[in-house]
Amino acid sequence: MSVYTPVSEAELDGWLKNYSVGRLLECEPIKSGIENTNYFVTTTQGRFVLTLFERLPAEELPFYLDLMAHLARHGIPCPAPIANLGNQFLAQLNGKPAALVTRLAGESIDKPTPAHCEELGALLARMHLAGRSYSAYLENPRGPKWWRFAAREVSPFLDAPRRKLLESELAFQAQHRFPDLPRGPVHADLFRDNALFHEGRISGVIDFYFAGVDTFLFDVAVCVNDWCLESAANLQALLAAYGAVRPFTALERDAWPATLRAAALRFWLSRLYDFHLPRPGMLVHAHDPEHFRKVLEARVAGPAPWIA
Amino acid sequence: MSVYTPVSEAELDGWLKNYSVGRLLECEPIKSGIENTNYFVTTTQGRFVLTLFERLPAEELPFYLDLMAHLARHGIPCPAPIANLGNQFLAQLNGKPAALVTRLAGESIDKPTPAHCEELGALLARMHLAGRSYSAYLENPRGPKWWRFAAREVSPFLDAPRRKLLESELAFQAQHRFPDLPRGPVHADLFRDNALFHEGRISGVIDFYFAGVDTFLFDVAVCVNDWCLESAANLQALLAAYGAVRPFTALERDAWPATLRAAALRFWLSRLYDFHLPRPGMLVHAHDPEHFRKVLEARVAGPAPWIA
Repeated sequence: MSVYTPVSEAELDGWLKNYSVGRLLECEPIKSGIENTNYFVTTTQGRFVLTLFERLPAEELPFYLDLMAHLARHGIPCPAPIANLGNQFLAQLNGKPAALVTRLAGESIDKPTPAHCEELGALLARMHLAGRSYSAYLENPRGPKWWRFAAREVSPFLDAPRRKLLESELAFQAQHRFPDLPRGPVHADLFRDNALFHEGRISGVIDFYFAGVDTFLFDVAVCVNDWCLESAANLQALLAAYGAVRPFTALERDAWPATLRAAALRFWLSRLYDFHLPRPGMLVHAHDPEHFRKVLEARVAGPAPWIA
Repeated sequence: MSVYTPVSEAELDGWLKNYSVGRLLECEPIKSGIENTNYFVTTTQGRFVLTLFERLPAEELPFYLDLMAHLARHGIPCPAPIANLGNQFLAQLNGKPAALVTRLAGESIDKPTPAHCEELGALLARMHLAGRSYSAYLENPRGPKWWRFAAREVSPFLDAPRRKLLESELAFQAQHRFPDLPRGPVHADLFRDNALFHEGRISGVIDFYFAGVDTFLFDVAVCVNDWCLESAANLQALLAAYGAVRPFTALERDAWPATLRAAALRFWLSRLYDFHLPRPGMLVHAHDPEHFRKVLEARVAGPAPWIA
């Protein structure tokens, strides 16, 4: 579980007096997640999620919170940060930066159908369009610069074939950058567990704490590498629904194979890193890195799937 | 009914392409209301209310919309304006300034109980506290300056006793101003039909288009003059719940009798005005002004009810 910083009901009740959300009714730790301490918080006014930030640099937090607020005010179903009486999204609680956000209805889907992928694709495109008027800037913290850092750190743990795959993919990616692709703030981690569905409709996109500015296509590729691995119909549905809202450009079509590989590389690297170099006190067991090595190898072997 | 400016589904569907709320599913005119044209709008993403502003001065609209956005980001259940792809709350539709806001669940209550009034009182106080960090300013458009204007206009239609009541109340109010009372943006029209309840909890406060900066106590008095006329228990519940969130000051206690009278005067005047001087094309029949004359007379006869 991932409660690094316990918060008692009395502490929370006191802290909430600086908000306009009514009295505390219930508070329940959220056991999943790796990066932060999270609680479900129910007040007389509604349902919220409290996050205590354990590891993210304090200066980056406004980027994430303001992005969520920006998307929410555009009608995107994402957690909306709640401002306190000082009109701030960020406050301190038990020595940590903390924020209260709205809790969205719905459940994540383990086995998505084409209908789910259609919902996701359309929402992703709407989110990208809404994000274009967001003015803050934070480079995708898991972009190429980080890949090179992480590769150096994990290389000693890899056998020869894996090290070779990693090195050749880094070399390939270095030669296939696409600075002119449409870009903006992207979620960059929109796996199945970060989307909620309610009555067949997508009801929420959560966990924006890997967001950053990158190509929209990278965001699409991250989704495809998780939602559509086992189903060509899922892929068709996701890409077609996305393209109906924000049509893909010719340049994006060209960049698609390399971008799918980049998205696989990014998660192979982060999973290698968390597996071989776990942070002290990390309470959730690391994902198996092998899954994304296989995804990457499949993407390298190609051909990259695209709209039929 | 109050659809002054018709909007076809095709027009709306096209207009919504400039938003991030998905495709139009349904659109239904709202028949109540006097001031604006309103539609319920359902899209693939959710439920909204579309308002075309028919009469409010364009330069005042940002005050109302930004206030709603401010309160919503504090967790107050009020309609949250949706920004378009240009990041604006206000746009043009069929020649009118128009805005899309979230539609809240719940129903208004005709016969409120003390439990409803307790919910209302607590929320009103939270709303006042949250509003203190709102920086825009618009004087209550139905404040003392407007009373004097309206009194001149309606006087010719009044019989002698009514004219005497009006003149003496204006004189009383002129001598009982309280510039030092706590103030901020207030709803100023929070009648029963502007509050929604869902499963016993207050789920929404709507229709902020009479909002302005005034004393918080005036807002409380407007509520008391509608929600608590027939029930001392309602009054106790409303004032106690409000005071538990934002305790009343001694000055507010002193100002209460005159403020209750001011709130009655304001609505007697606006109802006289709408009754005797209806705007051309006004589609909803005016409320009977006599109701608030009686409320005012009862408040003048006193004593003003307060927390037991």
